[in-house]
Amino acid sequence: MDLKTLVEKNDTKAGRYFDFFIQFLITLSLIAFSLETLPNKSDELSFWLYIIEVFTVIVFSIEYLLRLFVSDNKLKFIFSFYGLIDLFAILPFYLTSAIDLRSIRIFRLLRLFRAFKLLRYSKALKRFRSAFHMIKEEMIIFLTATIFLIYFASVGIYYFESSVQPDKFSSVFDCMWWAVATLTTVGYGDVFPITAGGKIFTFIILILGLGIIAVPTGLISSALTKCISDEKEEKVSDKLKT
Amino acid sequence: MDLKTLVEKNDTKAGRYFDFFIQFLITLSLIAFSLETLPNKSDELSFWLYIIEVFTVIVFSIEYLLRLFVSDNKLKFIFSFYGLIDLFAILPFYLTSAIDLRSIRIFRLLRLFRAFKLLRYSKALKRFRSAFHMIKEEMIIFLTATIFLIYFASVGIYYFESSVQPDKFSSVFDCMWWAVATLTTVGYGDVFPITAGGKIFTFIILILGLGIIAVPTGLISSALTKCISDEKEEKVSDKLKT
Amino acid sequence: MDLKTLVEKNDTKAGRYFDFFIQFLITLSLIAFSLETLPNKSDELSFWLYIIEVFTVIVFSIEYLLRLFVSDNKLKFIFSFYGLIDLFAILPFYLTSAIDLRSIRIFRLLRLFRAFKLLRYSKALKRFRSAFHMIKEEMIIFLTATIFLIYFASVGIYYFESSVQPDKFSSVFDCMWWAVATLTTVGYGDVFPITAGGKIFTFIILILGLGIIAVPTGLISSALTKCISDEKEEKVSDKLKT
Amino acid sequence: MDLKTLVEKNDTKAGRYFDFFIQFLITLSLIAFSLETLPNKSDELSFWLYIIEVFTVIVFSIEYLLRLFVSDNKLKFIFSFYGLIDLFAILPFYLTSAIDLRSIRIFRLLRLFRAFKLLRYSKALKRFRSAFHMIKEEMIIFLTATIFLIYFASVGIYYFESSVQPDKFSSVFDCMWWAVATLTTVGYGDVFPITAGGKIFTFIILILGLGIIAVPTGLISSALTKCISDEKEEKVSDKLKT
Repeated sequence: MDLKTLVEKNDTKAGRYFDFFIQFLITLSLIAFSLETLPNKSDELSFWLYIIEVFTVIVFSIEYLLRLFVSDNKLKFIFSFYGLIDLFAILPFYLTSAIDLRSIRIFRLLRLFRAFKLLRYSKALKRFRSAFHMIKEEMIIFLTATIFLIYFASVGIYYFESSVQPDKFSSVFDCMWWAVATLTTVGYGDVFPITAGGKIFTFIILILGLGIIAVPTGLISSALTKCISDEKEEKVSDKLKT
Repeated sequence: MDLKTLVEKNDTKAGRYFDFFIQFLITLSLIAFSLETLPNKSDELSFWLYIIEVFTVIVFSIEYLLRLFVSDNKLKFIFSFYGLIDLFAILPFYLTSAIDLRSIRIFRLLRLFRAFKLLRYSKALKRFRSAFHMIKEEMIIFLTATIFLIYFASVGIYYFESSVQPDKFSSVFDCMWWAVATLTTVGYGDVFPITAGGKIFTFIILILGLGIIAVPTGLISSALTKCISDEKEEKVSDKLKT
Repeated sequence: MDLKTLVEKNDTKAGRYFDFFIQFLITLSLIAFSLETLPNKSDELSFWLYIIEVFTVIVFSIEYLLRLFVSDNKLKFIFSFYGLIDLFAILPFYLTSAIDLRSIRIFRLLRLFRAFKLLRYSKALKRFRSAFHMIKEEMIIFLTATIFLIYFASVGIYYFESSVQPDKFSSVFDCMWWAVATLTTVGYGDVFPITAGGKIFTFIILILGLGIIAVPTGLISSALTKCISDEKEEKVSDKLKT
Repeated sequence: MDLKTLVEKNDTKAGRYFDFFIQFLITLSLIAFSLETLPNKSDELSFWLYIIEVFTVIVFSIEYLLRLFVSDNKLKFIFSFYGLIDLFAILPFYLTSAIDLRSIRIFRLLRLFRAFKLLRYSKALKRFRSAFHMIKEEMIIFLTATIFLIYFASVGIYYFESSVQPDKFSSVFDCMWWAVATLTTVGYGDVFPITAGGKIFTFIILILGLGIIAVPTGLISSALTKCISDEKEEKVSDKLKT
């Protein structure tokens, strides 16, 4: 069994173990990232998080070099989607260690690119991409309609509420936040109309708007459901062949 | 290539550039409108917004005169849907400049008619109109049912809550606002029942009401989805012809 | 044209005018009822509302007597669904005038029975009843499941939150209100978990619960949609016959 | 009629009465459990709740012994799903009476296992289990996607809001609570973004996220609806056979 098969394929037992190990490290790294944001960490926890960070970076670096080594076209790998993801997953560590600790917060966030490393192993997410591709055109039309609707709702509520609640509906942009929170029915309750006109307008825009907002949601849902059933059928037909 | 083809059709290259230019100006104008509502604008921003306003009004005025000039029946154009939209898009500027600056707020809002100018270029929105036409009858029935439901919910909650929260559920009209916010599941949290009876009533009205409210939403969604798939099919059959 | 046809049928012109007049009065009466709940009514408004009330009661009384007069079986009419509705629509007025003004609030609410008078004229609502009949069995199963879910969610959140927020999650019954507001995604924001355990529990219960809650909503929606399309088909086939 | 038929079957009249009696007691016991959590119980209520508790435990104990007595394989019954449920339903009472009253709260909660005793009688819940089995695979995929989405949303909002609202978005874990409340559109209003970036991010994550969250909900709904219609068909075909 050669190195290329181990790293790039997962149809051998060793290849699957290699993949599983990398996936485990990515998940560990993401959990460590979350734990690092905790405000009052004990010194012990900070120490262990640092150990995990160093360890994962070392492994990811080796993985990157291995993948670079086994690839037929080195330059193509470096600038490929997964090549860049793998690079961005380790770069922040070296940069923050090397240069300085300034603007460390942005670099810390770059570590999140590791989450995208999981995409390589995810058949489902590959299907998701094809699902989004399937409904791309409709999504553009309905996103345009949604943005138009939110703009219209924002200007309308601005007309009714801005003079009464100048702090909350101070501009059309503030009103857009209200429109988003209302039309998705999240309704945090930080901004809401208090005039009779604003309330009636909200009712009308909700009755019409919920139908328009429901379309992109429905499109994504049905495309995802379809791609899942396709995957299942394929699996069945694969089994029938063997 | 004559002027009529340039202005009214978009099957020539120049015609498409003309359309694209007007659409760009409409969008620019809408963004400028939003920016103008910002409470603390710098003098520089105000100046540039004024420049944009003057420029767009001049172009829209030329466009209006061009469309009037190339139309076969001048009077019919003036009182047509798009003719009136085009007029209302420029009128507020001339009126506020000419007469006086009083009641400027209403006139500023009239500028929003420019958004409707976009309808001329939007195939999707034309389809939306046909979608709404398709479900007109059902919408009327369900809107009646929705209004009946909201009325019933309002009177019910008035009975339970008005004596305990007289400031929030002071009349059936105030209760209607609660009913709208609750049955659309927005739930801002500005008004909610606190009595046991009011809470149980809310539960019952929600279980029944969500089903009734979901119908208009579903009708709009499915009609819009249908009209989009029709548009796609047409496009395919158009391609097959050529 | 005899009186019986005028009152009971609506296939003559006079019969339709009679129906329309009664429907208009019912609507007027419901609006008047809403206006009466306004806290600071002017004397003039109160006066006009009283005039409307007296006028509608007189007309409804005449209507009741007419319907009683033309019915073949007097006793059967009095104890029929619509006969009782018609009686309850006028009774509160006579009772509050006759006996005393005590407990007037309950009697005022009885006037709402007038809303049900509209049912006689509503083909749609007749269909709604048949829609509910269609899904009766499933509704009972899912309402049981919904109640079980709400009970389970309430006990769960009680376990997590009662010790930390004893005022808001003081008993399982208080927790039920949280469960209703959360599982319908209304989320007023008056009660919400603050412990980590309670928040994780909320996440799990929402993922499972939204699916269960969505079923009754979906059942009502599809039944209503079906009954509307049936009504349309019938209308088309009626037209084809003539 | 032998004892085995009475306890284990419900196709005799006595068997049905026995089942109905046990179901009634379970429901009574669950209501009693809820009432016990009321903060200010009168002594009389406490007394009656204790009587109900003792009575139900005695009956459940007799039922347990009966079931054990009539079972062919005693050991198999004790460690079967329903055998354990029946045991857990009575154990807390004996334990809290025997040992001590410490940590009574946990034991009180164990009494909730009685709710699961209802499962034995519920055909619908048996179907629910088969429904969940039907969609197990898809649920795992979408729950993974949902968790990924919530993680991504949490880290995103942490980046935008943690520096402005350090008390509410203090760590990625706190942000997850925001993500759950927002993506399920519950929107309690205890945490919400206040920065422009955070609000725009919320809009984008909602448009994409609602579609992904809607899939598990839709899967559960359609599986449940399918299993209900299966049940109905079976009932019809059963009737046709007889």
